[in-house]
Amino acid sequence: MPVVHIHMWEGRTDDQKSAIAKGVTQALTDAAGIPASATTIIIHDTKKSDWAESGVMASETSHTANRETFSNR
Amino acid sequence: MPVVHIHMWEGRTDDQKSAIAKGVTQALTDAAGIPASATTIIIHDTKKSDWAESGVMASETSHTANRETFSNR
Amino acid sequence: MPVVHIHMWEGRTDDQKSAIAKGVTQALTDAAGIPASATTIIIHDTKKSDWAESGVMASETSHTANRETFSNR
Amino acid sequence: MPVVHIHMWEGRTDDQKSAIAKGVTQALTDAAGIPASATTIIIHDTKKSDWAESGVMASETSHTANRETFSNR
Amino acid sequence: MPVVHIHMWEGRTDDQKSAIAKGVTQALTDAAGIPASATTIIIHDTKKSDWAESGVMASETSHTANRETFSNR
Amino acid sequence: MPVVHIHMWEGRTDDQKSAIAKGVTQALTDAAGIPASATTIIIHDTKKSDWAESGVMASETSHTANRETFSNR
Repeated sequence: MPVVHIHMWEGRTDDQKSAIAKGVTQALTDAAGIPASATTIIIHDTKKSDWAESGVMASETSHTANRETFSNR
Repeated sequence: MPVVHIHMWEGRTDDQKSAIAKGVTQALTDAAGIPASATTIIIHDTKKSDWAESGVMASETSHTANRETFSNR
Repeated sequence: MPVVHIHMWEGRTDDQKSAIAKGVTQALTDAAGIPASATTIIIHDTKKSDWAESGVMASETSHTANRETFSNR
Repeated sequence: MPVVHIHMWEGRTDDQKSAIAKGVTQALTDAAGIPASATTIIIHDTKKSDWAESGVMASETSHTANRETFSNR
Repeated sequence: MPVVHIHMWEGRTDDQKSAIAKGVTQALTDAAGIPASATTIIIHDTKKSDWAESGVMASETSHTANRETFSNR
Repeated sequence: MPVVHIHMWEGRTDDQKSAIAKGVTQALTDAAGIPASATTIIIHDTKKSDWAESGVMASETSHTANRETFSNR
């Protein structure tokens, strides 16, 4: 029954997406008793040139400030 | 006035999408008197590797279980 | 499999919404062979004071220009 | 950075929603190394009379078929 | 032609929403030559108890940390 | 805090998108005092063959009727 839209920067592998889907579905079960069979998840890969924070595209900032913050991903 | 977002697996032809747009617009007119000129429809093609049901990506299940269920599409 | 989000002005009755859901689901079947059991529809009722066309809230225009256009609804 | 929209039937308590937010955020960290501080979650409570599966509003079916399936929620 | 969905905390007045619609529509014209008549804006008021950052509902944090950050709104 | 999804036809340049993000973020500040640092904008490029108005795909109409209306873009 829940429909979950996840918007994130492109670049995750299929394995990571699979793990995201499994983990988010499990989280809904653990938190609110929602059966896994009721959950639909749709991942929306987004280019950094289509995503802005503070009025600046992520494509213009990610090679500097974000390099460290998100270095593990 | 209505804005309709349709999220579905990629693979439909332009002709099928055109038929979907026409049919959904007509359905809104028939069901609630909404004039066709007021309806906007946006189709979001989604890869099966970005779509999960029951915590499993559709790309991992569709070649088996879904083959029969959706054989006509 | 398709997830359909319909954003429209509030005011439709439950019967009209039920007819919309039935009609849109059928339209997807007729247009692209999508089985009814695969379709999820979510209706988002929206206040006219939360909806703008041409930079003007529908709540400010609907009592004039739209009165005729949408008089049948 | 990820923005997560969760559409589900209304009725969850604030505590359950809080647990959902915490769990989904953690799942994104575990699955793809996304730092918690980068995640935004928006929950969209939806009336069963605004949600349809198989062309039928959940408000018309949930008191029968769904009673058992979702009895734990 | 553009459809803009704005998700934000509830609490803005109708006047503020009207100013948002006018300003965003104008911004699209100024930035990319999009005529005002082509733009639809839908505002989604969201309760702080339905919105989470860093895995914590805004309703649990806004009375402390956010008090200063957003004091002008 | 606001999350803004902008759905529009593909074809804008990165410079135009950057200007859109900057302008929309500024408009939210000017209209409602929302600090730029709180705003996330996600642009969804859409093919004209995935967008319908009045039940007709934009890909089928834009080379005629829209040529004049949108000639400046």
